[in-house]
Amino acid sequence: MPIQLELKRIIINEIDEDQVIVLNETDGDRSLPIVIGIFEATSIDRRVKGLPTPRPLTHDLIVQSIELLGGEIQDIIISDLRDQTYFAKLRVRQEGELIEVDCRPSDAVAVAVTAKVPIYVNESVLGDALDED
Amino acid sequence: MPIQLELKRIIINEIDEDQVIVLNETDGDRSLPIVIGIFEATSIDRRVKGLPTPRPLTHDLIVQSIELLGGEIQDIIISDLRDQTYFAKLRVRQEGELIEVDCRPSDAVAVAVTAKVPIYVNESVLGDALDED
Repeated sequence: MPIQLELKRIIINEIDEDQVIVLNETDGDRSLPIVIGIFEATSIDRRVKGLPTPRPLTHDLIVQSIELLGGEIQDIIISDLRDQTYFAKLRVRQEGELIEVDCRPSDAVAVAVTAKVPIYVNESVLGDALDED
Repeated sequence: MPIQLELKRIIINEIDEDQVIVLNETDGDRSLPIVIGIFEATSIDRRVKGLPTPRPLTHDLIVQSIELLGGEIQDIIISDLRDQTYFAKLRVRQEGELIEVDCRPSDAVAVAVTAKVPIYVNESVLGDALDED
């Protein structure tokens, strides 16, 4: 059963390459920290702050491409955790059909924040992530 | 009349944020240097070198999203130069129709290298770019 998450924090660390986003359960207390790259972190941060950009940035391009091709982004899901690596999917509706596109959670969250769609995680992923701590 | 270009060089500069890609005319001597960000430069470099990645990276995600939605990337074009800023488009065919998606040249070139499609520039842009030197 997928669980809805909300982006709670973006921790940008200027010393290190790796940044962290923290997703919290919408209806609960659990949280999921995900290590992402500086590019994705600043891209998410810029969207959350609503900073304007003169030209479409990479995640705007993803959203626009999908919309211009008649797709509607329904939500994103962090679907798997294998070997300490998270896997995610964009879930897109096109003419009633559900299309899933594999991606990294960082791109998925950046797309969710850009397109203003919900973020989900599979229960098993959240459980496994917490067991690893 | 659009002119075909080829990616000639990627100049990665570790001191500065700004990187340069150089596109050369396929059937001529003119070249077009474009300043891009480090993320886009490394993304293009990784694709040119054919380095494998365990999960789809951001530009793979663009290409996969378009293909899964029934689009075929025909080519990319660097369409405009305004206030020293380049503008580009992805040109996608879907059921015979041409769909143009606005983007930055850096994303466009990264998509072209990923999807192995031609890179074009409008003659006026190439002329203007050279006049500015």
